[in-house]
Amino acid sequence: MRLAPSILSSDFSRLGEEVEEIEKAGAHVIHVDVMDGHFVPNISYGAAVMKSLCGKTALPFDVHLMIENPDQYLEDFVTDQTEYITVHQEACPHLHRTLQHIKGVGVKAGVALNPATPLSVLDYVLEEVDLILIMSVNPGFGGQKFIPSALRKVQELEEIRRKRDCGFVIEIDGGINLQNVKKVTDAGVQLVVAGSSVFGAENIGRRVNEFLELF
Amino acid sequence: MRLAPSILSSDFSRLGEEVEEIEKAGAHVIHVDVMDGHFVPNISYGAAVMKSLCGKTALPFDVHLMIENPDQYLEDFVTDQTEYITVHQEACPHLHRTLQHIKGVGVKAGVALNPATPLSVLDYVLEEVDLILIMSVNPGFGGQKFIPSALRKVQELEEIRRKRDCGFVIEIDGGINLQNVKKVTDAGVQLVVAGSSVFGAENIGRRVNEFLELF
Amino acid sequence: MRLAPSILSSDFSRLGEEVEEIEKAGAHVIHVDVMDGHFVPNISYGAAVMKSLCGKTALPFDVHLMIENPDQYLEDFVTDQTEYITVHQEACPHLHRTLQHIKGVGVKAGVALNPATPLSVLDYVLEEVDLILIMSVNPGFGGQKFIPSALRKVQELEEIRRKRDCGFVIEIDGGINLQNVKKVTDAGVQLVVAGSSVFGAENIGRRVNEFLELF
Amino acid sequence: MRLAPSILSSDFSRLGEEVEEIEKAGAHVIHVDVMDGHFVPNISYGAAVMKSLCGKTALPFDVHLMIENPDQYLEDFVTDQTEYITVHQEACPHLHRTLQHIKGVGVKAGVALNPATPLSVLDYVLEEVDLILIMSVNPGFGGQKFIPSALRKVQELEEIRRKRDCGFVIEIDGGINLQNVKKVTDAGVQLVVAGSSVFGAENIGRRVNEFLELF
Amino acid sequence: MRLAPSILSSDFSRLGEEVEEIEKAGAHVIHVDVMDGHFVPNISYGAAVMKSLCGKTALPFDVHLMIENPDQYLEDFVTDQTEYITVHQEACPHLHRTLQHIKGVGVKAGVALNPATPLSVLDYVLEEVDLILIMSVNPGFGGQKFIPSALRKVQELEEIRRKRDCGFVIEIDGGINLQNVKKVTDAGVQLVVAGSSVFGAENIGRRVNEFLELF
Amino acid sequence: MRLAPSILSSDFSRLGEEVEEIEKAGAHVIHVDVMDGHFVPNISYGAAVMKSLCGKTALPFDVHLMIENPDQYLEDFVTDQTEYITVHQEACPHLHRTLQHIKGVGVKAGVALNPATPLSVLDYVLEEVDLILIMSVNPGFGGQKFIPSALRKVQELEEIRRKRDCGFVIEIDGGINLQNVKKVTDAGVQLVVAGSSVFGAENIGRRVNEFLELF
Repeated sequence: MRLAPSILSSDFSRLGEEVEEIEKAGAHVIHVDVMDGHFVPNISYGAAVMKSLCGKTALPFDVHLMIENPDQYLEDFVTDQTEYITVHQEACPHLHRTLQHIKGVGVKAGVALNPATPLSVLDYVLEEVDLILIMSVNPGFGGQKFIPSALRKVQELEEIRRKRDCGFVIEIDGGINLQNVKKVTDAGVQLVVAGSSVFGAENIGRRVNEFLELF
Repeated sequence: MRLAPSILSSDFSRLGEEVEEIEKAGAHVIHVDVMDGHFVPNISYGAAVMKSLCGKTALPFDVHLMIENPDQYLEDFVTDQTEYITVHQEACPHLHRTLQHIKGVGVKAGVALNPATPLSVLDYVLEEVDLILIMSVNPGFGGQKFIPSALRKVQELEEIRRKRDCGFVIEIDGGINLQNVKKVTDAGVQLVVAGSSVFGAENIGRRVNEFLELF
Repeated sequence: MRLAPSILSSDFSRLGEEVEEIEKAGAHVIHVDVMDGHFVPNISYGAAVMKSLCGKTALPFDVHLMIENPDQYLEDFVTDQTEYITVHQEACPHLHRTLQHIKGVGVKAGVALNPATPLSVLDYVLEEVDLILIMSVNPGFGGQKFIPSALRKVQELEEIRRKRDCGFVIEIDGGINLQNVKKVTDAGVQLVVAGSSVFGAENIGRRVNEFLELF
Repeated sequence: MRLAPSILSSDFSRLGEEVEEIEKAGAHVIHVDVMDGHFVPNISYGAAVMKSLCGKTALPFDVHLMIENPDQYLEDFVTDQTEYITVHQEACPHLHRTLQHIKGVGVKAGVALNPATPLSVLDYVLEEVDLILIMSVNPGFGGQKFIPSALRKVQELEEIRRKRDCGFVIEIDGGINLQNVKKVTDAGVQLVVAGSSVFGAENIGRRVNEFLELF
Repeated sequence: MRLAPSILSSDFSRLGEEVEEIEKAGAHVIHVDVMDGHFVPNISYGAAVMKSLCGKTALPFDVHLMIENPDQYLEDFVTDQTEYITVHQEACPHLHRTLQHIKGVGVKAGVALNPATPLSVLDYVLEEVDLILIMSVNPGFGGQKFIPSALRKVQELEEIRRKRDCGFVIEIDGGINLQNVKKVTDAGVQLVVAGSSVFGAENIGRRVNEFLELF
Repeated sequence: MRLAPSILSSDFSRLGEEVEEIEKAGAHVIHVDVMDGHFVPNISYGAAVMKSLCGKTALPFDVHLMIENPDQYLEDFVTDQTEYITVHQEACPHLHRTLQHIKGVGVKAGVALNPATPLSVLDYVLEEVDLILIMSVNPGFGGQKFIPSALRKVQELEEIRRKRDCGFVIEIDGGINLQNVKKVTDAGVQLVVAGSSVFGAENIGRRVNEFLELF
């Protein structure tokens, strides 16, 4: 199990320091929430903000593109530290091509599903993807509450993974905190995004530790 | 004359420190370049990055929205420190309404023109605007070269301003450096955006000083 | 079972009188068909037409938004008489958020499915919705013929409702007349939209009665 | 000079009666404000509402399409009573074609300009148009205040009309009332739209009379 | 079984001759790949290119619209020789209407699915369609490699066809060559598109023969 | 003066032969009319059709992109024979960038204006462009009638060219025939597009000759 703090909830004026803090505390991955104000009703930040961390942290990047036409921008997010680039099924009429595109630039390919989107939309790409991101809030903002049906979705996806013997990682994003993290990892989640529950803590390093103790 | 360093070219991992540095050196305004990847082919950053500076600098914000549907997002950029919100004429079929909208939220209203856009598109809003931003590069990226015809545009706009006795400020953005800044301020520019020529300098404080000496 | 005459097929020059007539005859709900000319190839009417009925009828409003970006407009349709606001799944990439938005403004939330759209798209929102509207014609125009596969869709939805013990109401809209209404209510429909079959009748009050006798 | 009350501000529950009232009082034209919620941020009503008046009034229709892709819908608004169909320059990349299209369906062709749009955009179609509609508010809603620069725009347009000896009618729409109507007709306006100032009056027939006395 | 060479891979400077050659060799159908540069990232050709073949070949046309808003253009492709018009499910929010539209102009109606699109999206139109086109590459370009999961999709579709006793034809498009064609026809495909594997051959007539020998 | 026959009106089944014929007769340039069905209401053809002529004719290509987002596709049209790539001002919010983009790929840059578009939109790019294409019909279809105001536009543009001493070529496209060609070349046109008047002739070679005699 790995913890991926989302810098969407960090203090951007001292991003480098906060990332250093979570890295020291043992976080595994930096979750990079890119929003364009079109696919989701908020503009967060783009590749330049992410790249400012290159060399300042050794953590890998887990890029989550909440944008329309992700094919146009995904090359911008390729760095030596980029582990995953994840696109939204709802934004990709040619999902199979987009996943191949990501793998073609040397990065692991992920697909994210909005809370209302059924698993059946992935039926013919399960063998192609390295990661499936189950959204447990509606994407666009930090600090939202966990949507309970996401837990059932994780359980059903985990069952499909076992049955079809697929290699993808299950990630969850939205409303994860110390109270509910055990439930989702028990259900099959291997990569846990935590935003405000990490960066909103008084001591963000200690909060990372508290999460890790539950892994 | 005022200098508005654009943080688009700053080191985002230590944004707070760099802004402190330019403030100490005497910069007057923070230029905030918001890009959505739709109006322009790049995603820069949104309101959260700007707001992380609130309280950490006393400088006013000069918000430049390079986005489609700016009416949807402009409230997000209103803070106690926001002096201007500037929208692109090319993105505003209802430009007069959008300018009223900005003024309605208590902020000064600006309009930006792409390098190819003629001044005539502003004929019926010159009395409404507080600021006109002449783009001297095509918006989307830092580090581009100054387009010479922008100088003529500034001169013609300055002449219109005098003739019609308008109160708007003329701002320029794109490719401004120590070599050409005098030319544009002589032509009528009162607010000078400088991005890579400030933040790309070895000593960004000293570079701010060098600009100010030319004012 | 409740009857919801759609005013799309009414005589708009005397809308108040026609609504009075159907109310006196015992209709339960006013079905409000909002079309924007973008999601569907017709522009019908917006909130002002609906609101002109406030106070002139005591019937509740059942608002059916056949529009893109329904989040932008749904507040306009909230009145003391608004019972449901229904959006199209095909127009909502963030369906869960939109449903929460509707409930957040104090109205019951519905989701509509076009004739070709499968029930599986609702798998993770069945517990969130108050109403599911099965379109039995392609939305956009009154006076179309009932599409037979809609009956099977109602039957399958009713079975899901029972199995998962959900509280949503099943509504049908399109081509309903005195000949086929019994079939759809037998299959599980509780809210029946009737447009031209009511307002196209010589005596619209009597036609409402004829429908009610079949309930 | 002719008065064109806009039914956007009428009581839609008794549209027929209100139109009868203004017709009896001497209004010359029905102004039909069609909004799609895309070109402008409001959905008003479409062709069916307008057509419900056919035969119930003898007044001609002056159709003002505040919609995207007007070519797709303009045939819907052609009736024996349709005198003008007016499209927005800002919505028509192929304005010349759209004007030919309108004339091709046997109706007089108008073009509307938003408050910020300069007259120069019409330079090569002045000989093609039958009507130019100067918006004196930003389109989308009734009840707004007259924008003063619209008066100058009318004056400049009237001068162009005289110089180039064109046959188009000048229309104005937005914030017209008994106080300012004389000013705009003196400036060259021949067709006056009045919405809330007519339909918001206690006695709408008398208000029509008051306008006509100023003509 | 029928072979449908796609002229996307032909030499357009001598289209008539190449089509004559494949016709003589026994090809059954001309596959017409229409791309608009919006639904897919390539512009191929439109109706005029196809129509230039009318009368010059007796083969029927199998039109594959890889375009947005296919309803706007499908009439353009209706000729005496047009057998099928196929639209993409991903481009049709009102798929049922679009299929009726095609049948309404006197042509057989097909629906195409991108490699990632699940079969469940067709659940309520299986009885409406004359043809289902399984894409075995991502649409947009000739010369791509067959995607293996398409074979499973064909098998599952064939099973559904048998169970529900439907009359639609199964077509496949993408990466078909002499090596894999047997596998897909064994799985249930009745109409085989071949592009570069036919027109890229040294002798295109002989290549058609080689395909036909495997049927 | 140069003649640029537009292959839009050719017989696509024997494109190579027809192009050979016009080349032999002395035509100077091949005009390539690319339409995407979005910027204009027709899909014509893309780069593959044009490229099929490479090597089969020695004539240079004059590419006219009647498409949205031309930046996405212009590289596709670069060949050894490509002399001009022309984009529409109405499709380019960042016109200056797009022109630089064309020149950056080693091709001369042109800009086209729809019949209704005023010359003022080019005020700040006149020094950047190699060619200005005045549309004398609304783009989208061959065989239309010349719009008279285009002649005045050419005259005014020619005057600007002289005054500002610019190097751009003036091209005209739409409705040009043996009767009106002299008028437009007298007015300043140096590159004449002719579509149906060439390819619709009984003898297309002789028709080219007839044009050339008038040059």
